[in-house]
Amino acid sequence: VYAGEWIAVDWGSTHRRAFRVGQDGEVSDRMSDDQGILSVPEGGFPAAAAAVRERLGELPMLMSGMVGSTRGWVEAPYLDCPLDLAMLADRLMAAPAPDCLIVPGVRDLGEGRADVMRGEEVQLLGAIALGRADPDGLSCLPGTHNKWVRTRGGAIASFQTVITGELFALLRGKGVLSSHLEAAPQFGDAFLDGVRQARNGTPLTDLFRVRAGPLLGVLPLEDASSYASGLLIGSDVLSGLRSYRAGERIALIGSPGLTGLYAATVRELGGEADEIDGEQAFLAGMTALARHLS
Amino acid sequence: VYAGEWIAVDWGSTHRRAFRVGQDGEVSDRMSDDQGILSVPEGGFPAAAAAVRERLGELPMLMSGMVGSTRGWVEAPYLDCPLDLAMLADRLMAAPAPDCLIVPGVRDLGEGRADVMRGEEVQLLGAIALGRADPDGLSCLPGTHNKWVRTRGGAIASFQTVITGELFALLRGKGVLSSHLEAAPQFGDAFLDGVRQARNGTPLTDLFRVRAGPLLGVLPLEDASSYASGLLIGSDVLSGLRSYRAGERIALIGSPGLTGLYAATVRELGGEADEIDGEQAFLAGMTALARHLS
Repeated sequence: VYAGEWIAVDWGSTHRRAFRVGQDGEVSDRMSDDQGILSVPEGGFPAAAAAVRERLGELPMLMSGMVGSTRGWVEAPYLDCPLDLAMLADRLMAAPAPDCLIVPGVRDLGEGRADVMRGEEVQLLGAIALGRADPDGLSCLPGTHNKWVRTRGGAIASFQTVITGELFALLRGKGVLSSHLEAAPQFGDAFLDGVRQARNGTPLTDLFRVRAGPLLGVLPLEDASSYASGLLIGSDVLSGLRSYRAGERIALIGSPGLTGLYAATVRELGGEADEIDGEQAFLAGMTALARHLS
Repeated sequence: VYAGEWIAVDWGSTHRRAFRVGQDGEVSDRMSDDQGILSVPEGGFPAAAAAVRERLGELPMLMSGMVGSTRGWVEAPYLDCPLDLAMLADRLMAAPAPDCLIVPGVRDLGEGRADVMRGEEVQLLGAIALGRADPDGLSCLPGTHNKWVRTRGGAIASFQTVITGELFALLRGKGVLSSHLEAAPQFGDAFLDGVRQARNGTPLTDLFRVRAGPLLGVLPLEDASSYASGLLIGSDVLSGLRSYRAGERIALIGSPGLTGLYAATVRELGGEADEIDGEQAFLAGMTALARHLS
């Protein structure tokens, strides 16, 4: 049923995006709104999914993200690493509506690790399918919850989550640093100062400079947000680079503004990286899964 | 005027505590409420201070903490390190009310540092006056904003703030970890697991275990809060121990529950520490300052 037109849905906690995909993988229409799973009332998923079809057509739907979590429509239990695209395509979960399939999340319980992802697996496997991410390499999917992923033979071998984006949002929303973090972080000297400071290995200790620096006139207030962003992203990237091998090119998959900051950070800290648009990677992953079904 | 009875006030952002102190330093009455400086309306400080005198007596008042900040009653500008008790006593700031003095805060602009404290200087110099903190040693004042302080010849020589308490509160209040951090952190195996994990040097990366661990059954939900506390306090203490010298005993000054967790962490990470009650240290510091005035 996924041989002709179908609908790809990226259904997260607070937002969803949906795309009508044609036979050759081209997108002929799209929508996005703030109907994330947390805003769907109990029993409301059939109607919420029907609204997508009203908008984009009565077509088969393939969904990924938090829609498959315990708080979502139907739980699609986590699959273990290592996991490649064909294995993922074999384990799609049917939702109780005609031609609605949900992509399961992935868990990593190897060597003392305990980690989960939902949605990033589609983007990453899509980037590999596109030939943009190394099937035997290191990838990074910055966002609210960044994921560092080691792939082997085209499969997700292991991964680790860093809550960098969420932490920045929390610090920005409330507390003693919040009034100093109002500016949008941007690349520049202040950002790089933060990245270099992250090398010190004590990001939680160095965060207070965001407050005391402007107070004492040694950090311009308008630079504080970029400094903090550099410090947190720098710390995030340093942890990711621990498994970096010389010569590797890290695949940075996500929204261009954010992958740009991560790319600059990787370079500053001695690695090399390529940026891949997260939406393209998502569509490539979903299209590859749909092909397995047809 | 501070030779007889007087009132010591610890006036912070969200709370204040006040003590009537007798000629020999004994406390004969006390009060505490949530009238921190952030809840005092513009122009409301004379009335807010009068309310303390109505309760404890028409006596001279000596105040420390955020009451001397730009948002407080009168700004008592930061004094530079090194700073000892006699120097601090020489720079008390008069508030515009009879016999009302405010203790200035301290700043550290040495060697690339930029840091400030308000209130902790009284506790620390008090602990030294009590003979409980080393005049040439390392002290730690855990709280919302922990301070690591190096003292030399009884003076505050340098210090660094770590926002451990605030960060824990932010993570607990909102976001993907919040529902897993409801339990009060306590000393035990989960706390020590967090402390040991902090040695890895990537606390921001390791925080997500708080979410994924219970989800995957490898960390009991009731242990998640203690693990997170151990991870954050462990990271805090590791940064403090960077300037630790073998044989030193760190003075941990604060509320007993919190200094207990820090003491256990210091021991686990190879240092030695003594716990000193923050209220006793505050009263000793204020009494020593009052003696300089009389």
